[in-house]
Amino acid sequence: MRDPRAIRCTYYLESEIEPHKAAAIMAGEQSSGTFLPVPGESARIRERHAARVVDVQELGACRPSLPSRANPEKVRAALVTVDFPMENVGTDIATLQTAIAGNLFELGELYACRLQDLALPEDFIAAHPGPAFGIEGTRKLIGGVQGAMVGTIVKPNVGLSEEEFRLVVRDLAMASIDLIKDDELMTDPAYLPLERRVAVATEEIRAAEQVTGHPTMYAFNITGDLAGLQKRHDLVVEAGGRCVMLNVPVMGLPALAWLRSFAEVPIHGHRAGLAASMRSKGLGMDYRVWQQLARLAGADQLHASGLGSKFYEPDGEVAANVLSLLDPLGQTVTPLPVLSSGQNVTTPGPTFEAVRSTDLLMLAGGGVAAHPDGPGAGVRSLRQAWAAAVDGVPLNTAAEQQAQAGDPALLHAVQAFGKGA
Amino acid sequence: MRDPRAIRCTYYLESEIEPHKAAAIMAGEQSSGTFLPVPGESARIRERHAARVVDVQELGACRPSLPSRANPEKVRAALVTVDFPMENVGTDIATLQTAIAGNLFELGELYACRLQDLALPEDFIAAHPGPAFGIEGTRKLIGGVQGAMVGTIVKPNVGLSEEEFRLVVRDLAMASIDLIKDDELMTDPAYLPLERRVAVATEEIRAAEQVTGHPTMYAFNITGDLAGLQKRHDLVVEAGGRCVMLNVPVMGLPALAWLRSFAEVPIHGHRAGLAASMRSKGLGMDYRVWQQLARLAGADQLHASGLGSKFYEPDGEVAANVLSLLDPLGQTVTPLPVLSSGQNVTTPGPTFEAVRSTDLLMLAGGGVAAHPDGPGAGVRSLRQAWAAAVDGVPLNTAAEQQAQAGDPALLHAVQAFGKGA
Repeated sequence: MRDPRAIRCTYYLESEIEPHKAAAIMAGEQSSGTFLPVPGESARIRERHAARVVDVQELGACRPSLPSRANPEKVRAALVTVDFPMENVGTDIATLQTAIAGNLFELGELYACRLQDLALPEDFIAAHPGPAFGIEGTRKLIGGVQGAMVGTIVKPNVGLSEEEFRLVVRDLAMASIDLIKDDELMTDPAYLPLERRVAVATEEIRAAEQVTGHPTMYAFNITGDLAGLQKRHDLVVEAGGRCVMLNVPVMGLPALAWLRSFAEVPIHGHRAGLAASMRSKGLGMDYRVWQQLARLAGADQLHASGLGSKFYEPDGEVAANVLSLLDPLGQTVTPLPVLSSGQNVTTPGPTFEAVRSTDLLMLAGGGVAAHPDGPGAGVRSLRQAWAAAVDGVPLNTAAEQQAQAGDPALLHAVQAFGKGA
Repeated sequence: MRDPRAIRCTYYLESEIEPHKAAAIMAGEQSSGTFLPVPGESARIRERHAARVVDVQELGACRPSLPSRANPEKVRAALVTVDFPMENVGTDIATLQTAIAGNLFELGELYACRLQDLALPEDFIAAHPGPAFGIEGTRKLIGGVQGAMVGTIVKPNVGLSEEEFRLVVRDLAMASIDLIKDDELMTDPAYLPLERRVAVATEEIRAAEQVTGHPTMYAFNITGDLAGLQKRHDLVVEAGGRCVMLNVPVMGLPALAWLRSFAEVPIHGHRAGLAASMRSKGLGMDYRVWQQLARLAGADQLHASGLGSKFYEPDGEVAANVLSLLDPLGQTVTPLPVLSSGQNVTTPGPTFEAVRSTDLLMLAGGGVAAHPDGPGAGVRSLRQAWAAAVDGVPLNTAAEQQAQAGDPALLHAVQAFGKGA
């Protein structure tokens, strides 16, 4: 029977030694491993604090995925389930990460060590607030927007002067876009400080809303030193900003959780740098694990690449990652999956087919800004592409229909961004 | 000529496309990449903000190191040097990490992306305080201890009751050890809270110092939520503790920098979890890069595995990593390299031969606690092994000499831990 206080982890391991033994070494290292002879107490500690290997499925021989001190021709692969006693960890996220994704990656006996799945005890989840806004809270702040949300990134991502920046934001806000975000590289540079960006963007968005009636959300990147994090957050809120952004992997999950403790607006969680510990299949952790930790720490919106993107994950993997964000996690509010990179009018179709949901934020860069008829047409074309996807209307058909009805935005987008364009 | 304001990075890349082109894509993505047609301004932005590929050394064809959307049989490897304008980043560590080690790892065109080296502008380094104590500050707080320092980790690493913990610390402090540290898994569990550990350990260390005259340093692990970080630090300092420990990769470099801003004692930097973004040779970054960031952020003592350890890095790599810690970094104070895992009397010889320095802290677990004559003999045997290593006396000869002079501690350690023991 499953122990309700156990933190259950599934690892892919490779080892020269017998997989059960390799799993036991790893579990020992990450819990009550190296024993001093403490007379009469070892048994008690082992019983109460040792991580337990509850299942080992051997997967056969393979070449080693990772380098180590030795260089064997073949190793034995296995899928291993380990239960960590929650008592070792308490409810702290950094301690959890240390236990389930810490020194174990260094073990010389292992030639692959990949945390593929995580099932947390209800008590652990309940100790964290999770997202304060998530999907529904984000929608509410964007005027109750329905369906898939359309956003974009300010480009060029670095180097804009204040006046250039103003014009970019103005165009996008006047296009009734749902969300504009800073590039992850844009934090608080001397040539365009956060304070000025916040002032200019909130001013332009307010002015556009008077015209369009649509309250565009701007995700201001407040990544930077922790001493100034709250000040930067407050700067955004005091100016009437409705979202802050954090580069979560470089800031750390504890920084996200801390921001969550005082944030008054949704937190847009960027994943820049995450691939460093995710892309090698024999090392690090799967997205479906990381996203649980980021949700517990309070991210309202979370990046997950995009179908058809320029990033490494194949579409099936992207879709699975997006769906993992929509999986329930205790009683926490569901975060908004953010799709980005290479997104345009051709991607809503495959995306909806794969995830069957419009609880998504699709960030299109060129798809908005480089639309031949301007950003307004860019946004409109993406909304029309989403409507077609949900209605099961082929993209080209929808484009023709819209054009015949007098709006060629989608047709022009298909011509500009479609396959063979 | 080298631009003194450039952040120079060396990457190992693999791509199907021509390496110069792959490098340019990567450099573009991480700086002023995706261009909007901003009339008349693109050239200015490119000139001032674009990262520049300054060198490409082709290394020939190989199998791809990493998965991507395509699965080519062969890719082209190259060593690439890229200069990032410091103006894009300012002096912020999280922004720097986002630029040089962010989204680039995700790029589908790359089949390997590894940051192998980093040379920071003097202005960037000078904007950070670096370690407050480092090697010399640590020595001073341990009674001016000379030579290689000897430390250990409290074991069992989880599960000890307060009374058991007290006896372990007492034995170690009475053995005149230089440093005792918490295991990285030990943070603030309900069964042995940090507050009680601090109270008990400082009390035992003070009492032992009355007897031995040696002020043992204890590295208390204050890893955990950021809201409580300063409180946990203050708890240590107010009780008379002389060191705090942080699991740097799980907490994030900004957390380390923040701790540095108020820390009154040395910061012991643990690297648990670092291997997740370091062990795969085609991904992430080399230790020699990471340690620069951790030093700028203020770590006084930094883990680097150990020669002969149970971790994956071969001895040559460990030695190079240790030496990288002793490399100058602007005007900052040099941090103390911490050697751990599998360290005992057999390791000082090869370690000194490889690094020619005693500015080291060697953590020996079993080598201290499991010495047949007790921890006092364990510590003594390690000091004697270090003296022999520095004097160029073979370990067995030194062990015989000490035994003949009336102290069999080293001889018994060689018998217990030596090869073939």
